[in-house]
Amino acid sequence: MSMNKEELLAKAKKPAADAMKLHPFYKGKIQVDLKCCVRDIKDFAIWYTPGVAEPCKAIAQNKEDVYKYTNKANLLAVVSDGTRVLGLGDIGPEASMPVMEGKALLFKYLGGVDAFPVCVDTKDPEEFIKFVKMLQPCFGGINLEDIESPKCFYILDRLQEECHIPVWHDDQQGTAMVTVAGLINALKIVGKKMSDAKILMIGAGAANICTVRMLKAAGADTGKIILVDSKGTLHKGRTELKEQHPVKWELCQTTNAGNLVGTAADGAVGADVIIGLSTPGPDTIKKEWISSMAEDSIVFACANPIPEIWPWEALEAGAKIVSTGRSDFPNQVNNSLGFPAIFRGVLDVQATKITDSMCIAAAEELAACAPDGGMNPEMILPTMDMWEVFPRVATATALKAIEEGVARLKLTKEEIYKLAEESIGKAQKQTKMLMDEGFIPAPPAE
Amino acid sequence: MSMNKEELLAKAKKPAADAMKLHPFYKGKIQVDLKCCVRDIKDFAIWYTPGVAEPCKAIAQNKEDVYKYTNKANLLAVVSDGTRVLGLGDIGPEASMPVMEGKALLFKYLGGVDAFPVCVDTKDPEEFIKFVKMLQPCFGGINLEDIESPKCFYILDRLQEECHIPVWHDDQQGTAMVTVAGLINALKIVGKKMSDAKILMIGAGAANICTVRMLKAAGADTGKIILVDSKGTLHKGRTELKEQHPVKWELCQTTNAGNLVGTAADGAVGADVIIGLSTPGPDTIKKEWISSMAEDSIVFACANPIPEIWPWEALEAGAKIVSTGRSDFPNQVNNSLGFPAIFRGVLDVQATKITDSMCIAAAEELAACAPDGGMNPEMILPTMDMWEVFPRVATATALKAIEEGVARLKLTKEEIYKLAEESIGKAQKQTKMLMDEGFIPAPPAE
Repeated sequence: MSMNKEELLAKAKKPAADAMKLHPFYKGKIQVDLKCCVRDIKDFAIWYTPGVAEPCKAIAQNKEDVYKYTNKANLLAVVSDGTRVLGLGDIGPEASMPVMEGKALLFKYLGGVDAFPVCVDTKDPEEFIKFVKMLQPCFGGINLEDIESPKCFYILDRLQEECHIPVWHDDQQGTAMVTVAGLINALKIVGKKMSDAKILMIGAGAANICTVRMLKAAGADTGKIILVDSKGTLHKGRTELKEQHPVKWELCQTTNAGNLVGTAADGAVGADVIIGLSTPGPDTIKKEWISSMAEDSIVFACANPIPEIWPWEALEAGAKIVSTGRSDFPNQVNNSLGFPAIFRGVLDVQATKITDSMCIAAAEELAACAPDGGMNPEMILPTMDMWEVFPRVATATALKAIEEGVARLKLTKEEIYKLAEESIGKAQKQTKMLMDEGFIPAPPAE
Repeated sequence: MSMNKEELLAKAKKPAADAMKLHPFYKGKIQVDLKCCVRDIKDFAIWYTPGVAEPCKAIAQNKEDVYKYTNKANLLAVVSDGTRVLGLGDIGPEASMPVMEGKALLFKYLGGVDAFPVCVDTKDPEEFIKFVKMLQPCFGGINLEDIESPKCFYILDRLQEECHIPVWHDDQQGTAMVTVAGLINALKIVGKKMSDAKILMIGAGAANICTVRMLKAAGADTGKIILVDSKGTLHKGRTELKEQHPVKWELCQTTNAGNLVGTAADGAVGADVIIGLSTPGPDTIKKEWISSMAEDSIVFACANPIPEIWPWEALEAGAKIVSTGRSDFPNQVNNSLGFPAIFRGVLDVQATKITDSMCIAAAEELAACAPDGGMNPEMILPTMDMWEVFPRVATATALKAIEEGVARLKLTKEEIYKLAEESIGKAQKQTKMLMDEGFIPAPPAE
């Protein structure tokens, strides 16, 4: 906690410099590899003509057999139109490709999921929806990514309604799920109940909006939640949103039961929790706001690369627990703890949907994976190198899918855990072996 | 040559039985693997947030940099709508998936190309075209596959016109290229010139139609080519084709200069070459037809799984050189000798198109790769295990792309050959290592 802003910004620059050195060195973060044997060229008669005609005919007879004879059951499309990439805005599908490849890498390494980036050249939501629906035959699921708000809500709703494979928007559900997991443990530590918590959310983008829904599913009272966007609190008088942003307008009706009209500073008074997913700091959230919160307050300052307030300042101002989006501070809220495990579970039971209850089950399991039973104020969430987290969260997700009746396969807890553990372990060992044997070359010396 | 039809059919059934055993065992023929290092979880800050923002910003500044910072330069989409899969007809996109995965396997193993299957849920050509155009940001090229005729012509023409990455339809160009390569050597053996050859083509599907164009580019006189479909020869009186099949109607004008009206039997009289890509035999081409051909006749009987005439019958009837689509007879006409190498060359110089001249250059090099300088009547083409073929054909393709001005990168012959040899060798060694180390398990015992 001794670094100043300049030092912390400088520290954040190291990965940027490494990225510009290593991206052109590797020219891509994922590749296509064989999954089946080629003992000699005679095997091509099995994998291609004439042998391949048999599984084709079987699938033509029974479409579901595509899960049996191909990689569909482990295959995910990571789809973006590049309209809201990281914090960079609408930089286009080509420029979104490094992120989507990175996402595919995380899916494989942390979840054993074969994910493939598909960066789509259209900004039109109807064309995008049609495109994704046409992709369905060859993928077991769809991970949407970096699509601008508000169209991302419409796209997700339509696709969840019209697709027969599960569709997920990680910027909404993924972030919401990990945030809820962190909040479950944070509230436990300060001895408050989710249903009693007064929550101020700063920023009303895709993540925070979805988090409201997920908090409700986790037991929060939405009337006690107040959202703030650049114009102030969302309340019943924000009629300009009716046309501009129907999803926010709906939240004007369902949140903020006291109809507080004001700023974030006003919303902070007496709040138990602040969740910031807004403008990079460090002065977006003021110390005074935190001082005005209820006792044992919880602050999630998740803007990147600089949180809305430095953690030590929030603590000085009276916060009991502080969480950020950075890996170099305690309590990182990190999507990567969620999506690889959730899809591992979803794919292993061939779930057709990802319900909010499945997300909550995943969040509760993630919370339960935290060290010290989630009672450590400096570690309310596990970190990515606690490998057992991933099969555990996968299992919780899959079991809930079975319970909700959206799973094609009914496996036992032990079977699901074993499958998840095996495929994740294999992905990591395989990567290590490719590195050890020089197929993935070592990076050039510093 | 001692097997009878039943025995040969039985022999063709072995790969089918193996396919039904091994497809569910492996559950997919390709997987996604990492291409870059993960030394520990700190590397995620390079490959994902925050580091990844830098290459994104660079590409947003200059779109071409996507070739530098991602796998786009080695990435191909294998796209099908499943409307004409192998000889099975319109079995749909799900059922086409085993073929597209197989194709991706061959691309990687024989060409070092990362190819990804995309099976599209639409039968509408306009929607299909729009879909493929939207795919462009993340792929370096498009391989179309198993799309029914005549719409495949329209789709290919439109996409070649409107895409900024190379588009190839393997059932057209791939088959035509390998057929032309075989014919170059066959004609050399019998001492005839391409420009003099009278060629009868039995079947007027996508492959044969494209072969006409490619033969012309290779020096054939199209007036001396006669095509036959199920209604007989294509000639100027086939006015019903004007509406039904404009591409065939055009061939009615440009081929068959003598305007022969008749059957395949009539077309065979005095022909130097028969190219059959029609109904599986063995009695689709009659011995009498072959006897009626010119001296030193050449017969390509390429229907699968049973050629239009048994090779020994064709030889008995007087043919000098016989070629089929089967690997267990001499002179297999095999697309796999073409597409992996051609795309290797295309991608390595970042060609924006694949011109007919590039196909002919590839065909000539493939012909030159045949043992004995192509002068062996029982081996007019190399076989797939002659590994040096692939970098040689890749190099010929790439050099022609540079000559034609469609290559973004101008490399030397030596540079191209080395790149191709390295990436193909790496793909095969990597597969072997995955097998040796058990990441690709051994198939179950027979």
